[in-house]
Amino acid sequence: MVKIEAKAVVIFEKGKLPEVLKEHTFTVDTDAIGEYQVVGESRGSPVNVSDLAQTGHAYKSQPTWTTELGGGRLAVLGNEGAFEIIAVGKGVTDFEVGDIVIPNRPSFGTWRSHIVETCEPGKHLPLRCVSSHKNPGLTAEQASTIRVNPSTAYDLVNDYIKDWDPNGNDWIIQSGGNSQVGKYLVQFAKLRNIKTISIIRHGKPDHDEIVKELKDLGATHVITDVEAASDKFKNEIVPSWVGSGAIRLATDCVGGDTFRTLSEYLTGDYMTDPRRPYLVTYGFVGSFDVNISGIDILSKGIIIAPYWLTSKTRLKREEAIHTLEEVSRLIIEGKIKHVPFVTHKYDAKVGWLNTYLMAIRDISKGKQVVTYK
Amino acid sequence: MVKIEAKAVVIFEKGKLPEVLKEHTFTVDTDAIGEYQVVGESRGSPVNVSDLAQTGHAYKSQPTWTTELGGGRLAVLGNEGAFEIIAVGKGVTDFEVGDIVIPNRPSFGTWRSHIVETCEPGKHLPLRCVSSHKNPGLTAEQASTIRVNPSTAYDLVNDYIKDWDPNGNDWIIQSGGNSQVGKYLVQFAKLRNIKTISIIRHGKPDHDEIVKELKDLGATHVITDVEAASDKFKNEIVPSWVGSGAIRLATDCVGGDTFRTLSEYLTGDYMTDPRRPYLVTYGFVGSFDVNISGIDILSKGIIIAPYWLTSKTRLKREEAIHTLEEVSRLIIEGKIKHVPFVTHKYDAKVGWLNTYLMAIRDISKGKQVVTYK
Repeated sequence: MVKIEAKAVVIFEKGKLPEVLKEHTFTVDTDAIGEYQVVGESRGSPVNVSDLAQTGHAYKSQPTWTTELGGGRLAVLGNEGAFEIIAVGKGVTDFEVGDIVIPNRPSFGTWRSHIVETCEPGKHLPLRCVSSHKNPGLTAEQASTIRVNPSTAYDLVNDYIKDWDPNGNDWIIQSGGNSQVGKYLVQFAKLRNIKTISIIRHGKPDHDEIVKELKDLGATHVITDVEAASDKFKNEIVPSWVGSGAIRLATDCVGGDTFRTLSEYLTGDYMTDPRRPYLVTYGFVGSFDVNISGIDILSKGIIIAPYWLTSKTRLKREEAIHTLEEVSRLIIEGKIKHVPFVTHKYDAKVGWLNTYLMAIRDISKGKQVVTYK
Repeated sequence: MVKIEAKAVVIFEKGKLPEVLKEHTFTVDTDAIGEYQVVGESRGSPVNVSDLAQTGHAYKSQPTWTTELGGGRLAVLGNEGAFEIIAVGKGVTDFEVGDIVIPNRPSFGTWRSHIVETCEPGKHLPLRCVSSHKNPGLTAEQASTIRVNPSTAYDLVNDYIKDWDPNGNDWIIQSGGNSQVGKYLVQFAKLRNIKTISIIRHGKPDHDEIVKELKDLGATHVITDVEAASDKFKNEIVPSWVGSGAIRLATDCVGGDTFRTLSEYLTGDYMTDPRRPYLVTYGFVGSFDVNISGIDILSKGIIIAPYWLTSKTRLKREEAIHTLEEVSRLIIEGKIKHVPFVTHKYDAKVGWLNTYLMAIRDISKGKQVVTYK
């Protein structure tokens, strides 16, 4: 009988961060699992801003409440992560010990050391195998962050503009160039011969290294937000780069003035060119208020649209799975490089919750992932 | 030999209004026209803001420059109007004397008493017959304003939301409720069982008559812009009207704060409802700057898109013709009421240009149409 003392970061009710976060301990007995159950052990679960938002009252995406982990009604946080299968019930046909799996449903609750899931043949599986002994695929490290950032980047490139020019005359301009999404986006764009302008924040001490990293990943140009807001870049420098090409897509995760700045770079002529430039917003770190010149909307024919992966996962399941499969394939084939993240290795002396709290503390410094072993 | 002294309002170069507008006289000899030519006499040509905008340097839609009317290179203003055919060349098979016709190309130049057009069989016809002795259709009055306002209203209702609920649970909210477009929009919406909220300006002396007129045309509710901006209407009154229905489309011709107000009324849940609410802008009488809460875009899944009839006429000719045919059919069948306009009857003593200048002067008072006879 292998009884594991498993740990999770949970909430018992919605409320203020970080007080509302609690450490919950529960027991997993790998010998006592059901015929169709599997046990997985965490190989990495990231801290995303959207995970934290689920603790708030206003956020639309709800965590999954459960009483199955003991201790009353609670919800495990975390939407993304990778687990290794360490035990399977005797009726399980879809998974084997050693498989690397990721969640196959929204609000899975990934901030835990172990999962126990029922995988009945013929029913919707709660997990998705991304690597097995028979069919090696993603590493656990790749798998742990594949669902959110790479999928978002892939969809931003592919869901709005459908007729990208294969000859390299089309461009994307993006804010958040130094984010994980930004780093994947330039790679997906380059694969389709789309040129990119990535905007990063002015005054970073490691500016030159950031630029080098982004260019190594495939960014065509990297500029700062101060440069992007300047007339010189708007009227001279960027036009000289783009030439007779077109900036057909702007993606924004900042909001506020950045939103408008991006719109000013878009190319379009509503009167003579049937192609519509898109300004896609997928988040805000600045002001929630966005503004734009109505003249730009009408004269360029700009369409403004939202992107939210969670919505797509819920409402367009098949399309979201297609994205995941494409992203996985490209990473496995080595066409898309895995973007490194910061890991917080669990230490029993520090504790499970504290490990996550350290990751949360560092969230503004880049992608943070908690690893169990 | 019937020599007609024809008149037109033209520009010789772009520049400031109204100085740049000139009266031009040219001769039309109905006995000396070519084998495939027709002569038409004006039965009404409206003054649209977009016509005037074509005199400016920045406007994207260009007037048509010609040297065929004598006096050097000039452009006749006006994009919309109806003409009656008064003479046809012996080879003309598509038109007969007495036909009511409208332009079949953008930037036609309708601000003139007479037109001479070449209508060769098998080639693209510059005119479109909307009523003939054999096949009576639109009256000249209906035809003179059918192209811009009714077509715009029809497209606003039909081009963005494709899956309107036939059972009356879907709503449109629109600014400019008292405009020609607004008056046609409520009619097209009602035909499809879509409910409408029309916003009109606060403080109009004839407020009650306007509300009565709009309701007679089919508007479900009429509110003022002051009411629309109030919390009481946002949080209580309009929600009580809409109930479990959805405001799926907002159309704006005002800009500025009105744009944001409209966005706040839209119904949508990006997480749970695959239907996307649309905020469509088709012009500005207020500020060109528009703003919106990014939270609304992301949580409701709002798509912001432009509408510009001229763009559609140029880039999607077949669709624009389909709209015109549908609008004509509905007017002829009596399902859509013609919305009255103000006429300025030409008086030789006043002059052709001065007649248009009076119409331009009154442009803010409603649709102005110059009639020749």
